[in-house]
Amino acid sequence: MSLTIIGISGSLRKDSWNTKLLKAAVRFCPPEAKIDILDWSKVPVYNGDDEANMPAPVLEAKNKIRAADAVLFVTPEYNYSVPGSLKNVIDWCSRPYGDNAWQGKPVALMGASPGNFGTLRAQMALRQTFTFSDMQPVMSPEVFVGHCAEKFDARGEFTDEKGRELVTELLANLVALTQKLIG
Amino acid sequence: MSLTIIGISGSLRKDSWNTKLLKAAVRFCPPEAKIDILDWSKVPVYNGDDEANMPAPVLEAKNKIRAADAVLFVTPEYNYSVPGSLKNVIDWCSRPYGDNAWQGKPVALMGASPGNFGTLRAQMALRQTFTFSDMQPVMSPEVFVGHCAEKFDARGEFTDEKGRELVTELLANLVALTQKLIG
Amino acid sequence: MSLTIIGISGSLRKDSWNTKLLKAAVRFCPPEAKIDILDWSKVPVYNGDDEANMPAPVLEAKNKIRAADAVLFVTPEYNYSVPGSLKNVIDWCSRPYGDNAWQGKPVALMGASPGNFGTLRAQMALRQTFTFSDMQPVMSPEVFVGHCAEKFDARGEFTDEKGRELVTELLANLVALTQKLIG
Amino acid sequence: MSLTIIGISGSLRKDSWNTKLLKAAVRFCPPEAKIDILDWSKVPVYNGDDEANMPAPVLEAKNKIRAADAVLFVTPEYNYSVPGSLKNVIDWCSRPYGDNAWQGKPVALMGASPGNFGTLRAQMALRQTFTFSDMQPVMSPEVFVGHCAEKFDARGEFTDEKGRELVTELLANLVALTQKLIG
Repeated sequence: MSLTIIGISGSLRKDSWNTKLLKAAVRFCPPEAKIDILDWSKVPVYNGDDEANMPAPVLEAKNKIRAADAVLFVTPEYNYSVPGSLKNVIDWCSRPYGDNAWQGKPVALMGASPGNFGTLRAQMALRQTFTFSDMQPVMSPEVFVGHCAEKFDARGEFTDEKGRELVTELLANLVALTQKLIG
Repeated sequence: MSLTIIGISGSLRKDSWNTKLLKAAVRFCPPEAKIDILDWSKVPVYNGDDEANMPAPVLEAKNKIRAADAVLFVTPEYNYSVPGSLKNVIDWCSRPYGDNAWQGKPVALMGASPGNFGTLRAQMALRQTFTFSDMQPVMSPEVFVGHCAEKFDARGEFTDEKGRELVTELLANLVALTQKLIG
Repeated sequence: MSLTIIGISGSLRKDSWNTKLLKAAVRFCPPEAKIDILDWSKVPVYNGDDEANMPAPVLEAKNKIRAADAVLFVTPEYNYSVPGSLKNVIDWCSRPYGDNAWQGKPVALMGASPGNFGTLRAQMALRQTFTFSDMQPVMSPEVFVGHCAEKFDARGEFTDEKGRELVTELLANLVALTQKLIG
Repeated sequence: MSLTIIGISGSLRKDSWNTKLLKAAVRFCPPEAKIDILDWSKVPVYNGDDEANMPAPVLEAKNKIRAADAVLFVTPEYNYSVPGSLKNVIDWCSRPYGDNAWQGKPVALMGASPGNFGTLRAQMALRQTFTFSDMQPVMSPEVFVGHCAEKFDARGEFTDEKGRELVTELLANLVALTQKLIG
């Protein structure tokens, strides 16, 4: 059986490093799985009053997440934490109460930043949210793509050898964990 | 000199407990300060590409934050962390690089939830972001309004005696800290 | 095959609530597993210079941990985090480099406190350390035994019905996760 | 009035990088303050039953902390968090209940590691404990001395120019914060 991983970049920026990293991940995915990239650009700011009439882009996102066997987050770091925009998608898709699309999904995470730490703090903050939805995280390897401006070529390819190995290993471990948990 | 505290509820919901708690705080504010409530309902989802042409609601929010002497967050908890919608406002108002409206502001935080923990995890996650902007946090008291449905009356008044004392103490400490730092 | 879970209370106090909770867990363990309680009372304060000549109580602890299939932490909360004494055992048993006894073990955690939060913050802090050792955590249920003084009888039995169910579920989930990962 | 800062290295190792960094800090301290280095090498593993008869090294440490106007932690990172041995000192000196030596002290933190992150995660975890004791943290700059093996000379001097500037700035900010709060 082929697995589907829903891949989510935490940035909407056109030239986002994290979106490039997610696209690289698509190519490093093991043959037993494929990565579908979630387009959440139309998801509005969350307002609990709108739950009674869920916005169409949220419903679409929830359907795609629910259909997936596992989740891959590729996150920038804003203010030493998860981007609010990405967290907003996580919040919407966990609602309404009792209909949480993330529930129980195996999950992996990585991130890229121009600075030294490769979104370490954002990833720590993101891990904290997994407990809420009983999402089983891949624990190793951690993928912190620091100094990312030097690690992609002009066409947006991820050229960092060590980074490519880590992404490959992370995806292999996500697939293996998913298979064991589904098994 | 009178101080201005910008008060920010993390919820857009009309009947939000946290907005009610913020409104209660307005009345418990010491005479040396007043709380202005930030309306961020028009702030869109952050997209780095829009920084070149900052949305008007973001510019307005930034101006109000910048004009304030201190910040008060009143936050719900979603997915064991800060609401993405609130974090989205924090992210926008910290941008563009070098023009961070939060920079150096003294800050206090509190929150209300129907459950037992009174947004403890959201507040821990929110504290993590303060370091980014060199925001000096009030360390005591912590205000976790758990079981909040029992603590407001039909008109939305915050009726919990112990809670009112804590809010009053928190605001007094925020004002005192701000005065000491401004010197 | 029967599984062995190494059970670790974070308190050395004779009448420790957490040790009582751990002893209760022994009785709620599913038949496919048994819990061995780690005695770490002789483990000294960590000093890197002593790694060349590892103290005997550390070697014994490491052997017991290594022999176990999974780990159960039962932790108090000190200073809003993991007890230093417990973290000291974690540190010792992760050393020397390349010989980490925790490596890859499935892990569950719970805790008891006289206050309201049942060691929530300590458990969050403890989860953070699991990533270092690639320890796969049980994500659900969370077991926060608040107001613990009312939940044990004079003989030290854990009498809280809801709490007993949660402990039973946690152990069942730890055993199931371990079987899937070993599988 | 001259201020006293109690300086605490998180490592007992003789050649500890963090102890070297603390000793460097002594020399970069502004003239309005001096740093006393805490010797906690005799502090035993915490056991609540021993509170009735507090060990002499704990009482001595508590006296020194209490006599200080501010605290400086220089911490390694073990298992992605604060060393248990250091946290053990924090725990002891916060006890017994009602007699917490850390209470209300302004505090700064820094750390050194051979790896890339300079104890970032340990510092985040340590910050979490400050809220318990109402310790007002210096928010800026953060001092993460990564790749520390290259930043000290054979005699143990801290030779990294940028790092020396950051340590100097951190201490100046700790002194300024302390003066404002004592004011």
